Amino acid sequence: MSKKLTKRAEDYSKWYNELVVKADLAENSAVRGCMVIKPYGYAIWEKMQGELDRMFKETGHQNAYFPLFVPKSLFEAEEKNAEGFAKECAVVTHYRLQNDPDKEGKLRVDPEAKLEEELVVRPTSEAIIWNTYKGWVQSYRDLPLLINQWANVVRWEMRTRLFLRTAEFLWQEGHTAHASKKEALCEAKQMQEVYANFAENFMAMPVIKGAKSESERFAGADETYTIEALMQDGKALQAGTSHFLGQNFAKAFDVKYTSKEGKQEYVWATSWGVSTRLIGGLIMTHSDDSGLVLPPKLAPIQVVIVPIYKGEEQLKVISEKVSVMVKELRKKGIAVKFDDRDTFRPGAKFAEYELKGVPVRVAMGNRDLENNTVEIARRDTFEKKTVSQDEVVGVIESLLEEIQENLYDRALAFRNAHITKVDTFEEFKEAIETKGGFVSAHWDGTVETENKIKELTKATIRCIPNEAEEESGVCVFTGETSSKRVLFAKAY
Amino acid sequence: MSKKLTKRAEDYSKWYNELVVKADLAENSAVRGCMVIKPYGYAIWEKMQGELDRMFKETGHQNAYFPLFVPKSLFEAEEKNAEGFAKECAVVTHYRLQNDPDKEGKLRVDPEAKLEEELVVRPTSEAIIWNTYKGWVQSYRDLPLLINQWANVVRWEMRTRLFLRTAEFLWQEGHTAHASKKEALCEAKQMQEVYANFAENFMAMPVIKGAKSESERFAGADETYTIEALMQDGKALQAGTSHFLGQNFAKAFDVKYTSKEGKQEYVWATSWGVSTRLIGGLIMTHSDDSGLVLPPKLAPIQVVIVPIYKGEEQLKVISEKVSVMVKELRKKGIAVKFDDRDTFRPGAKFAEYELKGVPVRVAMGNRDLENNTVEIARRDTFEKKTVSQDEVVGVIESLLEEIQENLYDRALAFRNAHITKVDTFEEFKEAIETKGGFVSAHWDGTVETENKIKELTKATIRCIPNEAEEESGVCVFTGETSSKRVLFAKAY
Repeated sequence: MSKKLTKRAEDYSKWYNELVVKADLAENSAVRGCMVIKPYGYAIWEKMQGELDRMFKETGHQNAYFPLFVPKSLFEAEEKNAEGFAKECAVVTHYRLQNDPDKEGKLRVDPEAKLEEELVVRPTSEAIIWNTYKGWVQSYRDLPLLINQWANVVRWEMRTRLFLRTAEFLWQEGHTAHASKKEALCEAKQMQEVYANFAENFMAMPVIKGAKSESERFAGADETYTIEALMQDGKALQAGTSHFLGQNFAKAFDVKYTSKEGKQEYVWATSWGVSTRLIGGLIMTHSDDSGLVLPPKLAPIQVVIVPIYKGEEQLKVISEKVSVMVKELRKKGIAVKFDDRDTFRPGAKFAEYELKGVPVRVAMGNRDLENNTVEIARRDTFEKKTVSQDEVVGVIESLLEEIQENLYDRALAFRNAHITKVDTFEEFKEAIETKGGFVSAHWDGTVETENKIKELTKATIRCIPNEAEEESGVCVFTGETSSKRVLFAKAY
Repeated sequence: MSKKLTKRAEDYSKWYNELVVKADLAENSAVRGCMVIKPYGYAIWEKMQGELDRMFKETGHQNAYFPLFVPKSLFEAEEKNAEGFAKECAVVTHYRLQNDPDKEGKLRVDPEAKLEEELVVRPTSEAIIWNTYKGWVQSYRDLPLLINQWANVVRWEMRTRLFLRTAEFLWQEGHTAHASKKEALCEAKQMQEVYANFAENFMAMPVIKGAKSESERFAGADETYTIEALMQDGKALQAGTSHFLGQNFAKAFDVKYTSKEGKQEYVWATSWGVSTRLIGGLIMTHSDDSGLVLPPKLAPIQVVIVPIYKGEEQLKVISEKVSVMVKELRKKGIAVKFDDRDTFRPGAKFAEYELKGVPVRVAMGNRDLENNTVEIARRDTFEKKTVSQDEVVGVIESLLEEIQENLYDRALAFRNAHITKVDTFEEFKEAIETKGGFVSAHWDGTVETENKIKELTKATIRCIPNEAEEESGVCVFTGETSSKRVLFAKAY
């Protein structure tokens, strides 16, 4: 593969695909639609997991683990409740391979080892979890159940893209059970806030919080809360959803509790999840034609130090200076790497860390030794400065904060510049086709209009923003009255 | 279910099964052989993961993620290399469910959606990973690959038991690739050391390090290193294995590298894993007729504080005292819970934390308020003492260390008392049948003898201990000469 990255302006999609592979984040596997997450990509996921897991625990949740397989009959129970539920799933029908007597050295599925009931590889775990909760909930004292699971799930997608849409992906799924509607609604909204906080403060990715329209809701949800981000190519990305499930799953799986007053009541539910898709969002929010740009808070390597030397002796002197610096930086909790490999030249190392989006690069050469300095370069703006070795730790510490903020501000400015208010369908089409981004428009609230607009423009309702103001207007498509603007966009 | 736990002496197996469920660790699910790991059990797993993951990273490993599915053809490539490989696997044959036109409300597998090639749910990931490594390794500069994966795997076991043997389980699997045999052997042995260190210093579970006999080796391994623990019922538990795979997988998947000298060479490999089975080992090493006993280093709750009060006012005063104590303990990194629920009496709380194995219980009542004291009880010995509130943090800190040590010492004494040296087959049978534990005996080194002994006594060779001394003797079964004793036992 060529080392040069396609430019974003040339072909955004190609740029993305190349970047994911060249920056060593992930690659396609021998299994259709399934990816291998390489160590560097997985290290970003681990950072994400670490922060999210802490946030979940701080809001009172515990982790647990439920089976990978869902018996077909549990899906049927759910089906009654959620008609539109995706049925593109991996189905296990047998439990043994054997040597094929007809073809030497080949294996075949043992026809004798057919399962009585087929097992579906979980596309999501509501069915298996609510079937379990039935045994856990008797009284109001058993509530709430505040449980999260880190797991892999499988959905048989026909068109896949690394991180954004893969047949198998990693995610977390929260599944909570509550005694009252109010409490469950509160939980669903709280988790939307947690996701927004994570997206903005760790991913440096601004998001719009809102509710999904009925046709975009999770099947089985009474309300789906979403966080929507904007990618550099003007397409929206649904980055996380939190569902208020009402009593739908409690009814499908017969989960009741005895209230304080001694009455039998159905339990109220939520579920919420984010996935490895976030890594796709991270890439398409910040990265540039030179490669990945990572926000310091999620960068596996925050600072890389590259020595520029001639001969062993110089390297030794530099290494001594650097090792003090490394110790100081680590004491501050900064992830630093000293790249003293002698198999690559400094130029090649610079290019590698640029491609991999390391936020801060420090170089130390002969002149720096003489002057007691280092050269510091930031990945987001390519700015360089020379600073005294005595100040380097403090400078890096504040620089990391500055980069984190700058990335957020830059993304926010871009996002805000790509929200277009329109009042006619002509304006709507024009905005979607030429400018991209979010289009803020009045809508008559019907699925028919939503579908028609989607047919004509490929734009869908991303959300009804939480902060949408009451404003009387008319639907851009039908002219019916409307009291709120909603956000449309083409989306991933 | 009755609250009372079966006694170990009565029925060890029943005691175990009841304890796992009553202590809220895990339960059977709607899917045959698959378990639900409940929050309290999963919290222990998270503690284990945390320590192991740190140890893996300290020895230079990185995490990554590979697909859940293995195409059947990759299994065939592996088969040539590993004849005996288990074929009891979950097999995905279809990718869609649809409404059954014959049976209303029922789903059926869509016969049109048959996969061209069946996918096996990974029972272990050598095949998919080595097929991937093929693309990652060209030159000696690409080596070593030191990669670990945290994942779920599935083996279609017919007889399952919670944690010890389940169809789906959680584990980590390390897969490394090296330029030389020496380096790979070194890695395999290093990971055996890491596992032994974890078992002894965190689980407080003494283990014997050794090598497996040929027939007990992982199929495809040239050498399997194991750590073997002894459970309270005298049966051994294989707690972790590390395999030196030679060039077997490199040859099966054609993974070669160009050496410094410009020659094409096959890569050398290791793989190593521990699983949720460790939780079973933890339970059966320390727990007693009153319930779980957890070593402090892996206890999700290390200290529980129970208030004994009459009326709101007293609770308020106690709570104030306790909140200072809690803050101090947390500052020391100690996981403490203050259980001020008013829905349960102190006696019920005591019983609950005893069952759940919380190492230290602190009680504070009216007399303690008067005397500025608390009562501290340790779970391992049931000893209680009254200490001044001013000293409580220091006392708890050293008590936790003491309990950790005591559990290890106790288990070690039991294990050492259950290693019996025998020199005749009569002694062998006697020891296995009446005393249990490890039997140290000379063996002629043949698979035939091993199998015969297994047939007659159900005991297998657990390992050839690393520290076995050279000693000339004769095989207990055939009388052939032998230079080393090996360890036999009945095993889980």
